Amino acid sequence: MEHSDVQIMFYGKNIAENQVSVSNGIIIKGIQKTENPNYVFVTIDTKNTTAQNLVFTFKNKNKSFTQNYSLKSRKENSRDRKSFDSSDMIYLLMPDRFANGNTNNDSHPSVIEKADRTKIDGRYGGDIDGMIKNLDYIKDLGATTLWPTPLCEDNDERGSYHTYGQSDVYKIDPRFGTNEDYVKLSNELHNRDMKLIMDYVTNHWSYNHWMMKDMPTYDWFHQFPGYKQTNYKTTTHSDTNASETDKNLATSGWFVKSMPDLNQKNPLVLNYLIQNAIWWIEYANLDGFRVDTYPYTDKESIALWTKAVTDEYPNFNIAAEAWLYSHAQISYWQKDSKISAIQSYNSYCPTVMDFMLQTILEKGVLKEEKQNWNEGVTKFYDTFSNDFLYPNINNMFVFAENHDTQRINFVYPKFEDYKITMALIATIRGIPQLYYGSEIGMTGSKNVGDGDIRREFPGGWSDHKQNAFTKEGRTAEQEKYHAVTKKLFNWRKNKEVIHTGKTTHYIPENNVYVYFRYNEKESVMIIMNNSVEKQKMNINHFKESIKNNTSGKDVLTDKSFDLKNDIEIEGKSVLILELK
Amino acid sequence: MEHSDVQIMFYGKNIAENQVSVSNGIIIKGIQKTENPNYVFVTIDTKNTTAQNLVFTFKNKNKSFTQNYSLKSRKENSRDRKSFDSSDMIYLLMPDRFANGNTNNDSHPSVIEKADRTKIDGRYGGDIDGMIKNLDYIKDLGATTLWPTPLCEDNDERGSYHTYGQSDVYKIDPRFGTNEDYVKLSNELHNRDMKLIMDYVTNHWSYNHWMMKDMPTYDWFHQFPGYKQTNYKTTTHSDTNASETDKNLATSGWFVKSMPDLNQKNPLVLNYLIQNAIWWIEYANLDGFRVDTYPYTDKESIALWTKAVTDEYPNFNIAAEAWLYSHAQISYWQKDSKISAIQSYNSYCPTVMDFMLQTILEKGVLKEEKQNWNEGVTKFYDTFSNDFLYPNINNMFVFAENHDTQRINFVYPKFEDYKITMALIATIRGIPQLYYGSEIGMTGSKNVGDGDIRREFPGGWSDHKQNAFTKEGRTAEQEKYHAVTKKLFNWRKNKEVIHTGKTTHYIPENNVYVYFRYNEKESVMIIMNNSVEKQKMNINHFKESIKNNTSGKDVLTDKSFDLKNDIEIEGKSVLILELK
Repeated sequence: MEHSDVQIMFYGKNIAENQVSVSNGIIIKGIQKTENPNYVFVTIDTKNTTAQNLVFTFKNKNKSFTQNYSLKSRKENSRDRKSFDSSDMIYLLMPDRFANGNTNNDSHPSVIEKADRTKIDGRYGGDIDGMIKNLDYIKDLGATTLWPTPLCEDNDERGSYHTYGQSDVYKIDPRFGTNEDYVKLSNELHNRDMKLIMDYVTNHWSYNHWMMKDMPTYDWFHQFPGYKQTNYKTTTHSDTNASETDKNLATSGWFVKSMPDLNQKNPLVLNYLIQNAIWWIEYANLDGFRVDTYPYTDKESIALWTKAVTDEYPNFNIAAEAWLYSHAQISYWQKDSKISAIQSYNSYCPTVMDFMLQTILEKGVLKEEKQNWNEGVTKFYDTFSNDFLYPNINNMFVFAENHDTQRINFVYPKFEDYKITMALIATIRGIPQLYYGSEIGMTGSKNVGDGDIRREFPGGWSDHKQNAFTKEGRTAEQEKYHAVTKKLFNWRKNKEVIHTGKTTHYIPENNVYVYFRYNEKESVMIIMNNSVEKQKMNINHFKESIKNNTSGKDVLTDKSFDLKNDIEIEGKSVLILELK
Repeated sequence: MEHSDVQIMFYGKNIAENQVSVSNGIIIKGIQKTENPNYVFVTIDTKNTTAQNLVFTFKNKNKSFTQNYSLKSRKENSRDRKSFDSSDMIYLLMPDRFANGNTNNDSHPSVIEKADRTKIDGRYGGDIDGMIKNLDYIKDLGATTLWPTPLCEDNDERGSYHTYGQSDVYKIDPRFGTNEDYVKLSNELHNRDMKLIMDYVTNHWSYNHWMMKDMPTYDWFHQFPGYKQTNYKTTTHSDTNASETDKNLATSGWFVKSMPDLNQKNPLVLNYLIQNAIWWIEYANLDGFRVDTYPYTDKESIALWTKAVTDEYPNFNIAAEAWLYSHAQISYWQKDSKISAIQSYNSYCPTVMDFMLQTILEKGVLKEEKQNWNEGVTKFYDTFSNDFLYPNINNMFVFAENHDTQRINFVYPKFEDYKITMALIATIRGIPQLYYGSEIGMTGSKNVGDGDIRREFPGGWSDHKQNAFTKEGRTAEQEKYHAVTKKLFNWRKNKEVIHTGKTTHYIPENNVYVYFRYNEKESVMIIMNNSVEKQKMNINHFKESIKNNTSGKDVLTDKSFDLKNDIEIEGKSVLILELK
């Protein structure tokens, strides 16, 4: 590894009272004790060592004991692993709610919360087996990459199904399966030429994390006299007017009461998180991270964490959940941002999420039937007008929804709107992400509760009356949604012009948005009519982009359009024309 | 001058057919002719010359004639003139609507439109004399700087009162007065230690400009086969996805039909505008420019214009009307912006207008009685959180309204809201600007027409039933508005802590926004309660800003507050506490 020091945490009653030594001539570079005698942190140098089994000996006046430790060899080409990028399509799912592949692990004696499908925030039994059984379905849809929400143990008394409050970050939650099952999921994906993204949580753990009961240091978590919640104002990172009080609370306050906030400024904590992340990459052969609540962490620490990971894996992509409401504020968190450079900051995080686009969609842009000055599809035009603020526009996660937002089919119950949304997600710059179930018209509302936007996928449980994983099992309505999704993303798979092409867009007229994706070899013209009326497009207006092409074939209908004449487009519809 | 070449335009029937020479041994550096034989541009070198009268001789086969030209000497210390800055308060007025000082010039034989006070967009007769007569009123209010909308001749058939369509940029409109009157206005201001800002229009002239009838070059104005209006999308300047068609139309399309768009890429045009601007600074001893529709001009040309002016006057402040809807987009136009540096662009314009703040106010922020996640005073907090995006935050024009927006007293008919608004404008970073009449509660609505937000100031016309220029003339209601405005801005005059102090603000709670302005010597604590309920402020929360101060005296009421105890603030009110 680039960084060859390994810091091993040993835990045991008064373990710090021992002298520590190690076998095989391995050099101990440092031994760190804390105010808690039950912990000792031993740093060894693994440079120029090979895979081997080590024995640590702990000795004091009265007795001695040993502890084995395995140094494993690195997988071949591990450093140079590819990662996800704009040629991929990411399928996001919540494992507890996707499919129950193994009903034997729905509850487990080692963890508190038991399966209860009557509760909106209960555990329903979905698991790794359920994902593996449906990988062919996911691949067939056109997805190339799987992002399951976190899978490590979450031993909360209630609401543990979302798994963002982890109680052991080295262990898969037994209700999802075992660590070996997770490796199997990774292998099964790779066998299908697909990729696996781990949802990594650097900001907080569960109140029931084992270390909470016996903290390695008092400042392992952010401590307040009495509970303090974050103020959620992550703009304080860049705000030159912010008070120290507010700045501190933004990153040190707890996200919610059940999630103690990790103190990454403590080098032992930061190192624990770095080594854990690297361990998972090696152990499960991961293809990327999505990092939860990225700007809720001290910004220097999260940059160190991100840099440490990408120093070991230079191509490794990491997507930061930087949920902010301006392009400049989001750009701040992308690697080599010129915005954060104003403050000499670099997060080193390659990918950020396009929450500006998602917000526009969630707020109902497609219901605005007039474009006016800044309504309707003008909002798309206006948002993409800010692309120059991002250092790497192809590394933008583009998505209409995720497990924390309103469901797109709830915002837009009409199929036409779904089609327009997916056409946009599939053809605009960046890395498209789909949220499970939308492809069969699944809905649900945050107004009812978070659990409602995380419903069971039909067919994922044996008592379901229908199975939407198969064509035969889908209703006609579901099949309509599925077919257009499948067509779009399978078409996208090999379209370099969409993955990395440039974009030219035109100021909307009559609520019609027109843009081109192009490279030296190909051009695609996207026409999005959000008005209810049929519209006629003056083809000469787009001459500089159409160039010498004379016809365009629509990806969704295979219909050809003559580009020597004006194009008519039906109300509430979209054309994706491959130009010839 | 830094730039010692002077380009003189000579105009006359077939003048280009002559040979040109000049007296006094002056060197002619260039003679430029165009496709129109009625123009010739002669460039002379004025380096190391003194003030003198020159004679140009034009000679051809048949005859010769001469033309006199005066080289004037530069005013002493002209280069180092101070300009307006954040220690100033700017009073913006529309001359035609402020006060009619001279009823003899309400109409004038040399210009088309005659006075007609029955029309909403008619000429009402306000003039330079009217301004001069009321300078004491303006100064007494606390203003230090006057910004009248444009005063050069606008010979449009109708709507000429706003004067943004100029027909001769070397001549004051005769309905306002003469060039000498304008100089007198400047002198009268300077005699009162006040400053004069000229509203300069680089983007367009009037359709009735004399050059439109006989254009020096075909491309003097942007020409289209048939009329083309700008698309108003000035984001195309930075938009890497923008089509060439849209980019071109943004800056080359005409603002409206009656305003031909100048082609500043033609060096003759650009030079004409530069020399005209410099001429006015010298001639009328100006203290600054406000530049209309700044980003509607080709961006390289407007930067050249701005740099040429500021090269001659290094301290000269210029405020760009860059009316955009994101901080990054507005910052783009400020000198040395790190945002425009992304595209290696520098506008060189020292000041930009805080349209983000103005938009929040215009959209009714003070009517939002709950703050929620992003409502009420949270909008103030959120907008000022973006200050880091601007290279010079003290050079932000802060204003609640101007002659193009909704009137603030129309948006908020209640006096409490006016008071909160003015307290904000008077205490936040930047250069405050007030729009005439608001200080006496004047209202009017854009919904009725632009003319309605530009009503006559009561007392400005002899037939007015009341005179709000004097305390005796004001109604009790008007006096209430006037008194608070006068108190605020007169207090601000010598408050360095407000002019150039730093800001610390706190995340609002209960719709109360608290911020401090401070420097090494002083601290001011502003508490703004936008909820209708009385609120109690936990004083410990602001400890880092209050420091060792133990009391605060409210600027508006002179009431003292003990800072050892929590502070109570009434609903819908504001405190400006000078800390001690």
